[in-house]
Amino acid sequence: MIKAAVMGYGTIGSGVAEVLNINQESIAAKIGEGIELKYVLDVRDFPGDAIQEKVVHDVNVIVRDPEVKIVVETMGGVEPAYTFVKSMLEAGKHVATSNKALVADKGAELIALAKEKNVNFLFEASVGGGIPIIRPLNSSLTADEIEEITGILNGTTNYMMTRMAEEGVEFQDVLKDAQEKGYAEKDPTADVEGYDACRKIAILTSLACGQQVDFQEIHTEGITKISAVDMKYAKKMGRVIKLLALSRKTDGGYQAMVAPFLLSQSHPLYHVNDVFNAIFVRGNVLGDAMFYGSGAGKLPTASAVVADMVDIARHLDKNIWVEWSSKKMALADFKKAEHTFFVRTSSDPKTVSDVFGEVDFTDAGIEGETGFVTSVMTEEAFADKAKELSGILSVIRVGK
Amino acid sequence: MIKAAVMGYGTIGSGVAEVLNINQESIAAKIGEGIELKYVLDVRDFPGDAIQEKVVHDVNVIVRDPEVKIVVETMGGVEPAYTFVKSMLEAGKHVATSNKALVADKGAELIALAKEKNVNFLFEASVGGGIPIIRPLNSSLTADEIEEITGILNGTTNYMMTRMAEEGVEFQDVLKDAQEKGYAEKDPTADVEGYDACRKIAILTSLACGQQVDFQEIHTEGITKISAVDMKYAKKMGRVIKLLALSRKTDGGYQAMVAPFLLSQSHPLYHVNDVFNAIFVRGNVLGDAMFYGSGAGKLPTASAVVADMVDIARHLDKNIWVEWSSKKMALADFKKAEHTFFVRTSSDPKTVSDVFGEVDFTDAGIEGETGFVTSVMTEEAFADKAKELSGILSVIRVGK
Repeated sequence: MIKAAVMGYGTIGSGVAEVLNINQESIAAKIGEGIELKYVLDVRDFPGDAIQEKVVHDVNVIVRDPEVKIVVETMGGVEPAYTFVKSMLEAGKHVATSNKALVADKGAELIALAKEKNVNFLFEASVGGGIPIIRPLNSSLTADEIEEITGILNGTTNYMMTRMAEEGVEFQDVLKDAQEKGYAEKDPTADVEGYDACRKIAILTSLACGQQVDFQEIHTEGITKISAVDMKYAKKMGRVIKLLALSRKTDGGYQAMVAPFLLSQSHPLYHVNDVFNAIFVRGNVLGDAMFYGSGAGKLPTASAVVADMVDIARHLDKNIWVEWSSKKMALADFKKAEHTFFVRTSSDPKTVSDVFGEVDFTDAGIEGETGFVTSVMTEEAFADKAKELSGILSVIRVGK
Repeated sequence: MIKAAVMGYGTIGSGVAEVLNINQESIAAKIGEGIELKYVLDVRDFPGDAIQEKVVHDVNVIVRDPEVKIVVETMGGVEPAYTFVKSMLEAGKHVATSNKALVADKGAELIALAKEKNVNFLFEASVGGGIPIIRPLNSSLTADEIEEITGILNGTTNYMMTRMAEEGVEFQDVLKDAQEKGYAEKDPTADVEGYDACRKIAILTSLACGQQVDFQEIHTEGITKISAVDMKYAKKMGRVIKLLALSRKTDGGYQAMVAPFLLSQSHPLYHVNDVFNAIFVRGNVLGDAMFYGSGAGKLPTASAVVADMVDIARHLDKNIWVEWSSKKMALADFKKAEHTFFVRTSSDPKTVSDVFGEVDFTDAGIEGETGFVTSVMTEEAFADKAKELSGILSVIRVGK
């Protein structure tokens, strides 16, 4: 039996224990040997839980036990996860994590450390929950130069956008519903402001370019300004509004951003609803591919963590190549990014035409405002022109 | 430089040379070393082609050259591909293939031989063209027991079904169009009779259960009987007709089949159009996932072959675990499989109700016939009842 430990017995950590238990036989068949959970590190005790005898409160118990080969980190946040993971790698243990904050911030460093120690640091569950996307990018799409990654990477906001589109309700109402259903946290900031999606697209872009993309540099807008009236216009245009996280390779370097976009029915992400995630990838020889599935949730996410454990168990003696150096990849200037913009303004159509030239007006039957879609222009050109309108009620970019 | 050879310089083989050339720098960065094509084996010469100096006609030139580490097989068909691949593995060379006929027939044996020789036999391109599906099944969804795989695995027939749905044209007309566009071969049998999809679902099912599933045992129906009238009924029901290849784990074992199905808009494969492929997978802990992309074509398929070459280059000293033993997995009795059936008959509605009990009638405005959907029943129960109707014009199963 290969001995493992779980650090952080919350939703995902307990899911890992559950998956190892449910599928123990088939997992053992895929490795040639079973995986046995020896320790669970947590500040709490779990009386009555099947793992109660395995609980330890001191990380060093795991660090010092040479029998433990695989350590799962499902604590979340950068510290103390970072310190703990580093100790494990330095002690020659392999690590699998679901922690996007840790991976976005310290990924390159931990990958390098794992390589140096000839162990593995894997993080499939950090993006897209149960959807295989890290390993496909790292091991499957290797013949390609990745030209574009566009994802619906946050299930909470996608659930909210879906409900707003279908029921015409306002943001605050659907947020309350999402919180009641357990899809949104009490403090929903990380989801609704796009911070969660931002870290995930930083990870995917780093893997696509093989260098460090700092999430702090990614232009990020959330969904908090999206209203029922915006949804009315979207419906009128035959579109939906989705929070997209995207990165594109351009002549000026990689462009990355997180923002709501209006998508038409022909867009591959148009049909991705509720808490589902999907990642669209374009390779220079592959063309278009898409990966779709449960982007969050206890068992789907745990499934990805345990798959990393299986991969590690098959590579106990070998570092799996991960192309992500600490060399920093500066992103292209966001102001130069080109988009088309849907705008709602209190200015009249004549003023709009005077400022923006030829535009597509949409009448959603809302009094006292004008809705229109611009031609393609840079972010800075749009910002300049928008100043000339008397009142901007809403701006949403239009997906290609 | 890692030396490689390509056997079979047709569409895919020449695509492999092209991809290795286009992305040589990024590929080298992902391995730490470049891949150099040393030989191209073909019966033909290719004067004027960039690879003309590399052409050899004798397979033994490659077998006997210890410098060649990776051999690509893109010849198609079981023989002589099988004999050649076996020689390469026995000589300690790694093999990547796009050949579904070879993999469906000899996969288990070649995987075992590769393991014995501590080399690799990879076949990502044999199913789904450029879509990563073999590696995800083999390396990503390993925490799960796979309960269902349902795929649109043949681009030619999906193109034809899409055009028939959109334009109301007949099978023969759309086949002619597909042949003119190069999507269908002069002899389209393998595609339109479902034989191609059958081999692919045999491969995926073998990987899902880790045992040998013989494609000859899979119930296979093609699309040749689908008519413009069937499409009219589908439209009336808000459905599309797709050629599905599917396998399901049931209490009675794995069920597998290839046949046209009527899909409603809520089905994840409903929106997969034209030459695109998609594979829906359900895992017991993951839930639902879907993989979508270019299922065929020169460069997408070559992208998958070259990705296998990169994986091999990273595992020159190590056999990558593939769970597919030669132990035979007998499929569940097809007669016991449960479906709902859409039927067109010249019998009147009263006779239909007398025979099938409660059904859903659909009036597509076609004179002299009755269209209806049955309740769920086994294949054999349906066949028995259908005999009691005077004239069956069409039978298409309805997707879940």
